Amino acid sequence: MGPGPSDVPRRVLDASARQTIGHLDPFFITLMDEIKVMLQQAYKTDNALTMPVSAPGSSGMETCFVNLVEPGETVLVCINGVFGGRMQENAERCGATAIVIEDDWGAPVSLEKVEQALNEHPQISLVAFVHAETSTGASSDAQQITRLAHQHDAMVIVDAVTSLAGSPLEVDGWDIDAIYSGSQKCLSCLPGLSPVSFNERALEKIRNRKSKVQSWFMDLNLIMGYWGSDGARSYHHTAPVNSLYALHESLLMLHEEGLENSWARHQKNHLLLKSGLAEMGIKFLVDEAYRLPQLNTVYIPEGVDDAAVRRNLLENYQLEIGAGLGALAGKVWRIGLMGYASREENVELCLRALKESI
Amino acid sequence: MGPGPSDVPRRVLDASARQTIGHLDPFFITLMDEIKVMLQQAYKTDNALTMPVSAPGSSGMETCFVNLVEPGETVLVCINGVFGGRMQENAERCGATAIVIEDDWGAPVSLEKVEQALNEHPQISLVAFVHAETSTGASSDAQQITRLAHQHDAMVIVDAVTSLAGSPLEVDGWDIDAIYSGSQKCLSCLPGLSPVSFNERALEKIRNRKSKVQSWFMDLNLIMGYWGSDGARSYHHTAPVNSLYALHESLLMLHEEGLENSWARHQKNHLLLKSGLAEMGIKFLVDEAYRLPQLNTVYIPEGVDDAAVRRNLLENYQLEIGAGLGALAGKVWRIGLMGYASREENVELCLRALKESI
Repeated sequence: MGPGPSDVPRRVLDASARQTIGHLDPFFITLMDEIKVMLQQAYKTDNALTMPVSAPGSSGMETCFVNLVEPGETVLVCINGVFGGRMQENAERCGATAIVIEDDWGAPVSLEKVEQALNEHPQISLVAFVHAETSTGASSDAQQITRLAHQHDAMVIVDAVTSLAGSPLEVDGWDIDAIYSGSQKCLSCLPGLSPVSFNERALEKIRNRKSKVQSWFMDLNLIMGYWGSDGARSYHHTAPVNSLYALHESLLMLHEEGLENSWARHQKNHLLLKSGLAEMGIKFLVDEAYRLPQLNTVYIPEGVDDAAVRRNLLENYQLEIGAGLGALAGKVWRIGLMGYASREENVELCLRALKESI
Repeated sequence: MGPGPSDVPRRVLDASARQTIGHLDPFFITLMDEIKVMLQQAYKTDNALTMPVSAPGSSGMETCFVNLVEPGETVLVCINGVFGGRMQENAERCGATAIVIEDDWGAPVSLEKVEQALNEHPQISLVAFVHAETSTGASSDAQQITRLAHQHDAMVIVDAVTSLAGSPLEVDGWDIDAIYSGSQKCLSCLPGLSPVSFNERALEKIRNRKSKVQSWFMDLNLIMGYWGSDGARSYHHTAPVNSLYALHESLLMLHEEGLENSWARHQKNHLLLKSGLAEMGIKFLVDEAYRLPQLNTVYIPEGVDDAAVRRNLLENYQLEIGAGLGALAGKVWRIGLMGYASREENVELCLRALKESI
């Protein structure tokens, strides 16, 4: 119950242990097609270019930046936690100028600041922000930020690492241009894959780039051929076949449950945890309106030894919860209720373990 | 028995299906340390920076280039198959000028051409070549190319995707500066990881770069902190925990067998295959002196339907062999005897299946 990787169900683990087959085997091609369709459902999109990057979430982030940013462009980066800072790094390494707006850790991205920055810097071509900050548990209004960006002729890159399958997210409904996530959060798959999706506006920009994408491994012009969005199957790299077996199975489980039911389950178990924590006098970092059900960041009670409690949970309850990052280190815990870990019995175990450890 | 991914033993598959734990769990840190030590043994090196990149072999290649090449440098790229061409792409995307020498597909890299290029272009800072070309089955003399490069004050990047654990390779003995491989060839691990190793000369260059590494995900300055070569463990990305369980197990199996014994087994089964193919009048593409035991590229006999035979092997013998790439498409088959697949019973199955299918 940390901030991810989340608990992986046995069904997904078993799927990953099926015999490895060649990445050009006809059966594997079918598997790729099914993954694509189920990812489109999870993202609520019809985007043809919807597929998992063969590496962790941070490479999904980089895939978005290296493809959509050209040297000399200006990118607005919204920072309200660790991962916004990483977006700034990515933008700058692509040769862009990053304009940064900052909000407090635990607060959402401020729409006013976004609008002001877009007004002040009409050259901004891209707005990058985190939908669900894993470092704080705060959700930002992806739909409204995207609307503002489009009003100013800018595209968006959205970090949905922690939101996908855990809380409402609609790629087409909100008109998101480029988005990435991770396999190891609310999908409860193994860590190591990064599902991404790009709309036609984003693809148009990528096809018309003046410069080559600086990364060969992440160049979508090459990967598109591999994942067959143009009907062909040209060899790009050796796919992580077994991780894709696992992703297929976790997407199948999500499909069986239903996406909206998964969101509702995350919300229900969050409320259960919240009520138990309230009884213990433990308070949340994030205002109720922006609180992520899948990542509960709470203040460590006065006088309690952070590391000792977490060690006790791990050793005596086999329970991992996350520490605070950056300025929040030693001040908060991050309790994940992600994917398969979002279950009533887990909430009860966590509450009991905390009660007995504090 | 294709050119990889190779057969994965059940022991490795089962290891990969162990319950996912957090990438900051103390147990996982121990696992990382053991992987590092066993990779050092497999590469025959004491290099502190020896670890698996969390993505397929092509990202290991890119990790070497983005870290060791700065814009404006001149790189000598030796092309004798598909993967040399990819190295050229990588060098150019890093802003370098690539000087290319070419040899026939199936031939090794010519030492004379390397020396001539180094003499003609004293500004060359790096020589990049493939030790074992997966697209042709030819081995090049990594020790001598490295010696020539060092004589001209250039470093080397070596592609050992297909050679690691399958045929003689000595990183320290041959004084190789930077090397990458894949998990899915002679290690018989799942596809998706790329073991790399860098010597002190390479690290010195990386530490003293004038420009930032263009990739955040592959920046070794950040990854070194994560893999703890400086004693610390700073969070970089979420490790592909289950794939690392698998790599740990496959390295353990290699350790149990002994590296030199693994090389000898690959050679023994290659000779067995060679003798059976000779009886059928099937000839090798590569001269005996440069033939890789783990990847046997043979001419398709006159009048035989390439695709029909491969389909028959797959459907009736559950046996995959590789097709030819590029100019060799339709002309050769590539029979892999890699890692766990390099077994006497496999050689026999392959020979029988070919005899019955042709």
